[in-house]
Amino acid sequence: MQIGLIGLGRMGANMVRRLQRAGHQCVVFDRDRDAVQRLQKEGATASASLQDFMEKLHMPRAVWLMLPAAAVEASIAELAPLLAKGDILIDGGNSYYKDDIARARQLAARSVHYVDVGVSGGIWGLERGYCLMIGGDRQAVERLRPVFAALAPGVDAAVRTGGATGEPGSAEMGYLHCGPAGAGHFVKMVHNGIEYGLMAAYAEGFNLLRHANVGSVERQPDAETTPLREPETFRYDIDVAGVAELWRRGSVVGSWLLDLTAQALRTDATLEGFGGRVSDSGEGRWTSIAAIESGTPAPVLTAALFNRFSSRGEADYGDKLLSALRFEFGGHREKAGGGK
Amino acid sequence: MQIGLIGLGRMGANMVRRLQRAGHQCVVFDRDRDAVQRLQKEGATASASLQDFMEKLHMPRAVWLMLPAAAVEASIAELAPLLAKGDILIDGGNSYYKDDIARARQLAARSVHYVDVGVSGGIWGLERGYCLMIGGDRQAVERLRPVFAALAPGVDAAVRTGGATGEPGSAEMGYLHCGPAGAGHFVKMVHNGIEYGLMAAYAEGFNLLRHANVGSVERQPDAETTPLREPETFRYDIDVAGVAELWRRGSVVGSWLLDLTAQALRTDATLEGFGGRVSDSGEGRWTSIAAIESGTPAPVLTAALFNRFSSRGEADYGDKLLSALRFEFGGHREKAGGGK
Amino acid sequence: MQIGLIGLGRMGANMVRRLQRAGHQCVVFDRDRDAVQRLQKEGATASASLQDFMEKLHMPRAVWLMLPAAAVEASIAELAPLLAKGDILIDGGNSYYKDDIARARQLAARSVHYVDVGVSGGIWGLERGYCLMIGGDRQAVERLRPVFAALAPGVDAAVRTGGATGEPGSAEMGYLHCGPAGAGHFVKMVHNGIEYGLMAAYAEGFNLLRHANVGSVERQPDAETTPLREPETFRYDIDVAGVAELWRRGSVVGSWLLDLTAQALRTDATLEGFGGRVSDSGEGRWTSIAAIESGTPAPVLTAALFNRFSSRGEADYGDKLLSALRFEFGGHREKAGGGK
Amino acid sequence: MQIGLIGLGRMGANMVRRLQRAGHQCVVFDRDRDAVQRLQKEGATASASLQDFMEKLHMPRAVWLMLPAAAVEASIAELAPLLAKGDILIDGGNSYYKDDIARARQLAARSVHYVDVGVSGGIWGLERGYCLMIGGDRQAVERLRPVFAALAPGVDAAVRTGGATGEPGSAEMGYLHCGPAGAGHFVKMVHNGIEYGLMAAYAEGFNLLRHANVGSVERQPDAETTPLREPETFRYDIDVAGVAELWRRGSVVGSWLLDLTAQALRTDATLEGFGGRVSDSGEGRWTSIAAIESGTPAPVLTAALFNRFSSRGEADYGDKLLSALRFEFGGHREKAGGGK
Repeated sequence: MQIGLIGLGRMGANMVRRLQRAGHQCVVFDRDRDAVQRLQKEGATASASLQDFMEKLHMPRAVWLMLPAAAVEASIAELAPLLAKGDILIDGGNSYYKDDIARARQLAARSVHYVDVGVSGGIWGLERGYCLMIGGDRQAVERLRPVFAALAPGVDAAVRTGGATGEPGSAEMGYLHCGPAGAGHFVKMVHNGIEYGLMAAYAEGFNLLRHANVGSVERQPDAETTPLREPETFRYDIDVAGVAELWRRGSVVGSWLLDLTAQALRTDATLEGFGGRVSDSGEGRWTSIAAIESGTPAPVLTAALFNRFSSRGEADYGDKLLSALRFEFGGHREKAGGGK
Repeated sequence: MQIGLIGLGRMGANMVRRLQRAGHQCVVFDRDRDAVQRLQKEGATASASLQDFMEKLHMPRAVWLMLPAAAVEASIAELAPLLAKGDILIDGGNSYYKDDIARARQLAARSVHYVDVGVSGGIWGLERGYCLMIGGDRQAVERLRPVFAALAPGVDAAVRTGGATGEPGSAEMGYLHCGPAGAGHFVKMVHNGIEYGLMAAYAEGFNLLRHANVGSVERQPDAETTPLREPETFRYDIDVAGVAELWRRGSVVGSWLLDLTAQALRTDATLEGFGGRVSDSGEGRWTSIAAIESGTPAPVLTAALFNRFSSRGEADYGDKLLSALRFEFGGHREKAGGGK
Repeated sequence: MQIGLIGLGRMGANMVRRLQRAGHQCVVFDRDRDAVQRLQKEGATASASLQDFMEKLHMPRAVWLMLPAAAVEASIAELAPLLAKGDILIDGGNSYYKDDIARARQLAARSVHYVDVGVSGGIWGLERGYCLMIGGDRQAVERLRPVFAALAPGVDAAVRTGGATGEPGSAEMGYLHCGPAGAGHFVKMVHNGIEYGLMAAYAEGFNLLRHANVGSVERQPDAETTPLREPETFRYDIDVAGVAELWRRGSVVGSWLLDLTAQALRTDATLEGFGGRVSDSGEGRWTSIAAIESGTPAPVLTAALFNRFSSRGEADYGDKLLSALRFEFGGHREKAGGGK
Repeated sequence: MQIGLIGLGRMGANMVRRLQRAGHQCVVFDRDRDAVQRLQKEGATASASLQDFMEKLHMPRAVWLMLPAAAVEASIAELAPLLAKGDILIDGGNSYYKDDIARARQLAARSVHYVDVGVSGGIWGLERGYCLMIGGDRQAVERLRPVFAALAPGVDAAVRTGGATGEPGSAEMGYLHCGPAGAGHFVKMVHNGIEYGLMAAYAEGFNLLRHANVGSVERQPDAETTPLREPETFRYDIDVAGVAELWRRGSVVGSWLLDLTAQALRTDATLEGFGGRVSDSGEGRWTSIAAIESGTPAPVLTAALFNRFSSRGEADYGDKLLSALRFEFGGHREKAGGGK
């Protein structure tokens, strides 16, 4: 089928390619003309302006936005007047699901469908396919099924779960209609919240492996730090890259994130090229907020989130207060350590 | 080569089978005579007593213990006098790595080698192979290499990491000599610590998906509980089994644990057959203790551990104190809720 | 001065009493006529309806709401049309500070002042005085200063901080203008967030003291639970009520919450009258949400909040998933334990 | 009575002074001769060597050690041969309670009593008195009662708990015999664990107050960081020193630690004199380890501990791994930020 795609960054461009390969016809637009031209050369229909883009699409249209979260709201405001009854607007970015609910209501008043799609797969999606979490009204989702099927990895991407037989369901293909407006981004939000937790579990584990040799390090005893009680039990020099590789086969902790860990550590096990200021792009926050609002305990996911904040220095003032208090009640002076 | 194996439970028996299939000759012993006979029928050499077992092994012997953690210490005490210079004793169970260090020292005094092996793979290992984390002196580990190679999954169990070419290293085969005595169980300990963290991340995420409909539940307003501010944003009935299946293909959170989650939820998405009292078998605790002793932050792994304690009611007294305090300062009475 | 007070529950009634004692004249209203009459007998001016209440107040009026969070919004909607230019509306309840910002804007359009006051002190406030955190425009706050001064505990309620001399500032008196609309409830929100953290710290500590005797308890060894390694180091029967009393004098952990802990444990150290389902009334949630929104790590405060959710059974589904996973990969069956 | 005291640092010297004021006679020793001379001038009996010290004490002796944790073991090894039947050795330092159990057993074999005393009060103890948590055999503790009574703050240091009447018990005086050997340091350990939790609760709260103005800060939008959704709700400039002062009167969060917070913030609310590398001196670690060993959930106390580790840079390698993973799956490059 024909589909329009706005936003040809890393994700968007590859999605166009995957759709074209499956025989769909893509009309594309981006403010970056080079991005448009690159895809034109690969068979997509280029457009020079939003107006042009809309005109090149047959009615009822399907317009897929693949934009940074910060740009979606403005872009929809610009597009909305150009949309007609029966058109479908799809937001494939990382929007907050509560915004989807509001947008869907506004567009529905004008008989325009709104579909929110959480897309996982990153820069690997072209090759591996994209996992799609979909929210919106049934009719619109049904119309887009061929598009979803083309983007999704397909059933062969994993061994079928025991008991699953016959024609694979859509979840087994790699896309799922999760519920009404917002449901797609809700599930994607939780997905990313879990991702933060998984990443933190590996990060803490590998960090502990790196600390396995603290008993070999000479430390000057002082009144401020408790000495290591049994230094002879912390004298291992663990090959962390080897361990990451090892766990990829046969172990309970095998995962795609572990595959990437093995890749990263094989390149440089010291990770010296990274500073360790870890960004967070919204979904992790929204997951924890949704947990709090709905009264659901999520200590692991939230600890992972807060650790990212701390990695960026956001705990510093609190830490200074702790040092100040230790000085107040015990006269403890901070240990020199070459600054924080 | 020939190897003796003591402990023919779920794990031990399957390891014997995998070794026999690879052409190794296993001498086996267990207090459960039926277990011994079953493996005898499959080609293993049975033994009727520890004495008999030791005599059937050629010198220098290799004796692999595959016993519950609680039984290892007594078993080694019984075996030690029967071991001779050059023999290798292997502990494949879930021992605390600090015990390995002590045992290795004691056996070394009598020129007996001690090798600790952390084994991951569970009841799936016969088919998938076992991931082996190995500690001990180089000479003994070298002698056992054919055994490790037979138990491990082999390089084909996963796509090779980018940049890995030529003859696969042992980590790529699925076994790794991690360091001196205790190193194997140290790495296995951290492995299980990570496992707790990963499991908790999924559990919290799926629990949140189940809470996505709290806005549809009528709740009597009261002074003790804050009302849900935007109930219309929590009205999703998410198909959690479908989502687990969905994420298995193309998503960042794909893993073997997610495969099992999909399996469990496909069987019964309400999980009503489970009570939710989650056991912990030692390594998770030791991981957190090692983190604390070595000064390594591990908030996610430890939150996962504490949640297991709480699931067994171990937070109850503290919770009662919180209710008591709320009553003391605010006159708040607990909301009735049909007991805890 | 004259002030109107709506909401004569536990908090409101005592605040009227404290104001009357200081010579202020209170006009009071509540749907519960008995509550109105009780205060009338103590010297307050009763009113029979909102209309009546508003007429008995001199212009420009000062109307203080002391209502449950869930009732404030409706009450303001009812009151707003009755308020005139120059009047001050004060919300002394536990409102979300973001609501204050919206309300202040709406009322300002009609030249009505809005002041938000976070009030701490609970049922002890009549005697100890109330700690007041105030938000709103300077002019309105200034006009209410005599009221705040009467409600606050006064400088003598605590030893003056070293370096504080001369005329005490308002913070030293026990009330503080924290900033524009919402600032009062923002500070109160954080106050309660801290309260959750402090309470949890004590609860965990006393719970651990109660567990100091787990080494005396006979436990059947099983494969599901790791045995206690050194039971002889957990054989203390600690007098927790005695310890709470002890720490009240000379120790670093002394606090008002500890005083209440000592009180509760003196009454019944087993706390058997409490079920341990701990409510949360909003501010703890908002604190964690504000931390997340502003990128501030708050792992301790948020762990305390999540523990309250768990105490009410909200982790159960996740816990079941953990048990299901353990069964899937290891064949582990849950330990019987008489239900959760 | 007569008592010997070894270790005349900040704590030890002040304890001698408080004992002398109460009429007890102190024999003192320290390797630092100046410290000995200072106390001699104030009436204590000086000694020039351990031998001299032991001779100046009447039999059966009472010897109180007030040494840094790292020095206690060596010091006891040196003292033990000089102790005679019926002597009491008291460790008032911050020893691990498991060491007390071992020491008591060894000394008991020679009929020497061992008493462990957890001492809280810091540099303020001379004036406020010391809170004493005591472990050991009843007979020895009984003999030392006059010493404990002199060091403790006494009943007047706090308002008596409701229901407490008549002759105050020892807990109300500020000292308590908590159980056999190790019980004193066990309770002190938990005390300090709670202290870490309380301090972290305040630190997180005040840090959040400092972040209340993040909506006023201009931030360049980028793809790596989620934008603040409602910046107008984070535009408060909170006077944190004022708030600390405010909460000291009438509020639920009042405490001695808050008094110190107010003191620290009054001196410099920016806390620029502190780097924020927070030390930990053992008890916090042991508290979390005891919680883990005994199966007691302690998420708040342990989060507080881990935060101290992180403040010293011990999370860095894990954070780098997170950045590396984000780069692997999403091509995300770390935001520049002037180093960590």
